[in-house]
Amino acid sequence: MAADPAPVAVLGAGNMGVAVARRLLSSQHRVTVWNRTPGRTGPLVDLGATAVDDLADAVASAPVVVVTVSDYPAATTVLGTPPSGPTVVNLCTGTPAEARRFADAVRRAGAVLLDGYPTHHADRVGTADALTVYAGPRRAYEEHREVLDSLGRHAWLGEDPGLAKAAAIASAPAYHGVMVALAAGAAYAEAEGMDVADYVEVMRPFVGTVKGIWDSTLDHLAAGTWVPPRTTIDKQVRTSRRTIDAFAAAGLPPSVLGSVAEVFAAAAAMGHGSDDTAAVVEVLRSRGGTPRDRPLHDLSADAMPTPEPRETDQ
Amino acid sequence: MAADPAPVAVLGAGNMGVAVARRLLSSQHRVTVWNRTPGRTGPLVDLGATAVDDLADAVASAPVVVVTVSDYPAATTVLGTPPSGPTVVNLCTGTPAEARRFADAVRRAGAVLLDGYPTHHADRVGTADALTVYAGPRRAYEEHREVLDSLGRHAWLGEDPGLAKAAAIASAPAYHGVMVALAAGAAYAEAEGMDVADYVEVMRPFVGTVKGIWDSTLDHLAAGTWVPPRTTIDKQVRTSRRTIDAFAAAGLPPSVLGSVAEVFAAAAAMGHGSDDTAAVVEVLRSRGGTPRDRPLHDLSADAMPTPEPRETDQ
Repeated sequence: MAADPAPVAVLGAGNMGVAVARRLLSSQHRVTVWNRTPGRTGPLVDLGATAVDDLADAVASAPVVVVTVSDYPAATTVLGTPPSGPTVVNLCTGTPAEARRFADAVRRAGAVLLDGYPTHHADRVGTADALTVYAGPRRAYEEHREVLDSLGRHAWLGEDPGLAKAAAIASAPAYHGVMVALAAGAAYAEAEGMDVADYVEVMRPFVGTVKGIWDSTLDHLAAGTWVPPRTTIDKQVRTSRRTIDAFAAAGLPPSVLGSVAEVFAAAAAMGHGSDDTAAVVEVLRSRGGTPRDRPLHDLSADAMPTPEPRETDQ
Repeated sequence: MAADPAPVAVLGAGNMGVAVARRLLSSQHRVTVWNRTPGRTGPLVDLGATAVDDLADAVASAPVVVVTVSDYPAATTVLGTPPSGPTVVNLCTGTPAEARRFADAVRRAGAVLLDGYPTHHADRVGTADALTVYAGPRRAYEEHREVLDSLGRHAWLGEDPGLAKAAAIASAPAYHGVMVALAAGAAYAEAEGMDVADYVEVMRPFVGTVKGIWDSTLDHLAAGTWVPPRTTIDKQVRTSRRTIDAFAAAGLPPSVLGSVAEVFAAAAAMGHGSDDTAAVVEVLRSRGGTPRDRPLHDLSADAMPTPEPRETDQ
């Protein structure tokens, strides 16, 4: 184990790249930054980073290369010909299948991929509850723990390099659903004659009620049991129907509520009416067939695409 | 203004009725409780409440009657022949149309309805961020402020008695969407080979990321402007498609994501691609027509239904 913090190369200087480089610098790492548009690295140089124009110089500068470009096509271009040796910590967005193909390409080039998913926006990198999950060789995860520590709280999901992006995709419905649900609620409130300012006042603290459902649902999913219920599926069948009827009476389509009501009704039809709402997972499991019957992933997929690199736009 | 806290009658002793009666008792109100099944009022009597078997005795005991039964059909039965005089504070669930019909029936009987929506579960009545909103005559809201204060933080939405339940319906998509989205994420994570325990560990702190989107979306809705974006609609068009593709690759239907992706795409097609995601409200507004063209509500609707009363099952 090195006595001093390891040097790190950061590729990309979008919001995530800047946040990562700042955390590493404040933990006394030597940091080399590269960005497709050199001008964006200036503030990091002021903080002590070394900016280089040549990508190969950046990659050769450190045993750990953190990739913060936007997606796998961009990451593939950036690491088109990675030198043998370094561990690539990749924080771009994408799917498990893309992560697995990328891991294969990195491995063929003689390097190692640790694929990561920061579960938060760039402005929260390194804060107390900000978790980044990694997937890939456990040895690489253990070897570079000091670098990962500098980036905040972290956890390892397994050897399969697709698991970090699987976590990212799994979190998306909640994230996206809330965006549209809040807007749908505002449109409905207005249609019923409510000031949007009043709607916002009601919804501000309502996030506490959502947090209660969030914790309770995760508790039930972790336990794998649906009793005792916080709130039953039978109740949600009634209330989701009532909501859709009220939207219709106000001249609005059900929006996200349509598929939600359908899932509640299917869970009740399966016999989960008096169970906790978390039991709707049984409906979704049953629709997906038996995961064990499918191969976990297929590394024989087509060659990786190589468009122009883009910077992180999160 | 009375020197002593006003006496209050509480109808219903489900979770919400018990929580309301306890808060009133701890604020030194004299409390009379009635429940269809007398046995459930015992713990409240131990705390100092007076239990009565005859509904008319309960209603006659106080100038304020708090109704905590489950829905408007139950509330209508309970208050079938309200005596002239009291203010009815109704906390049952339902729609704006039901609240407006109920207000009309209460008014015809010579009483006044203040219709309420506690934005939280019964276990949070009276806590610091638990907000209850009321709609109905401002005079009644002001006159009974001391009683309402005992029930926690509150706000008044307007004279239209439908506005409190409009707020309830408006909050439902976020609440229901999160339930199904967390279960959909779990089913997807499992299909990709992730331990459900790891999924739960990832999603616990992710509520912080959702809180960030929640606050940002409400800020934009309150301001009525969609710039500067926290995250653009163009980005969400891409990421919601990617999520649906990844669900499909894992053998799962899009669940809530189907309608979400459709709304993002419609907002981009309207020209909101580089705006904040809160701009999806424009899609939902446009689908609902112009609210001003429709009457706010119709009090001439059919007579109120009168089934058996049920207790709150929230």
